[in-house]
Amino acid sequence: MPRKQFEDDLKKLRNRFHEMGDITNSAVHKAVRSFVNHDRALAQEVINDDEKINELEIKLEKECFEIMALQQPVANDLRMVITIMKASSDLERIGDHAVSIARATIATKGETRIMDVEKALQFMSNDVKAMVDDTLTSFVLQDVKAAKKAAKEDGDVDEKYREIYKSCLEHMQADAETIVTGTEYIKVAGFLERIGDYATNICEWVVYLSTGKITEL
Amino acid sequence: MPRKQFEDDLKKLRNRFHEMGDITNSAVHKAVRSFVNHDRALAQEVINDDEKINELEIKLEKECFEIMALQQPVANDLRMVITIMKASSDLERIGDHAVSIARATIATKGETRIMDVEKALQFMSNDVKAMVDDTLTSFVLQDVKAAKKAAKEDGDVDEKYREIYKSCLEHMQADAETIVTGTEYIKVAGFLERIGDYATNICEWVVYLSTGKITEL
Repeated sequence: MPRKQFEDDLKKLRNRFHEMGDITNSAVHKAVRSFVNHDRALAQEVINDDEKINELEIKLEKECFEIMALQQPVANDLRMVITIMKASSDLERIGDHAVSIARATIATKGETRIMDVEKALQFMSNDVKAMVDDTLTSFVLQDVKAAKKAAKEDGDVDEKYREIYKSCLEHMQADAETIVTGTEYIKVAGFLERIGDYATNICEWVVYLSTGKITEL
Repeated sequence: MPRKQFEDDLKKLRNRFHEMGDITNSAVHKAVRSFVNHDRALAQEVINDDEKINELEIKLEKECFEIMALQQPVANDLRMVITIMKASSDLERIGDHAVSIARATIATKGETRIMDVEKALQFMSNDVKAMVDDTLTSFVLQDVKAAKKAAKEDGDVDEKYREIYKSCLEHMQADAETIVTGTEYIKVAGFLERIGDYATNICEWVVYLSTGKITEL
């Protein structure tokens, strides 16, 4: 019975998407931990793990394509497949940004640290992780309200970015020793800020999935 | 005859994608011109035009979905629709980065300039524009060789990013007056570098379109 087959394939697809979401989310958190603790080994781990995230995306692409080609889903089913395909690119890019944060870790190793900015980065990354968590949960539950709520969290993330940016500039202007790290801190805050944007994209897909409307959150 | 209908829809889709590509590409170039010339009016224009790019992406999404739902394309036809859908997200993100560059223009207005870095940014943006041009052409012609060649250009873009980054740090360490602009220059170079990555993604879609293989270029 093709319907049963389709349900199974879709379940497989959903599970793989969530697997990808979990791995990506922990990559982000590992990356920031490695950055804040100047832990090069952990940073290298994040860089190595990215291969796995990319492979998962390629697997998802292929499976989505196969389902569409072989089962020609319509309406909600088609929408679900398309949504997973689009959202998986957002996850993959979140993974890329985790790698960029890990690279920044390796770049700043041994440079003068700015402790209050590192603390601020830790808070910001907690917000981002919570946002990505809430986003993925809203996706699992296909909960539009939860998705819109998760997207709103991006405002705090952006605000924290601006604070870190400002504070880094002040440090860099006061002490040239902090210029290299300050620049890297700003980059890392920028990566986190962009991860929030990708999470917002995924929230938009959740809304699309349930309403069929493509909206900007 | 449905086949004829499908050809027409696909042609419409392709044209809209190229329209979106042209607008996005000129947004990138306008953004860098506004940044290098400290032209706030032009920067504002880029920010306003982004709405148009986002609308085009939403239109494309809808049309792709309709074609898939109503005409249930298979094999190459399906692949073409999926490719346009995926590549349009890359274009939309290139547009977002043009906006970020425009915002940096507004942020640095009136700050101490670093002329040699501005010149380097101009060269880098020329490379990026050429790369995006070549990418879009390879997409139109569905030319795998051209797509692989375009993706290779990303190496030069990355190299220019590293040079600009290094040179900015040197200026910032030598003269605290240049810290604000230097930081913005690094951000802009980073946006350009990422635009190169998105172009590479589109090149990967061209390869996928012709070979059915999802590959990392």
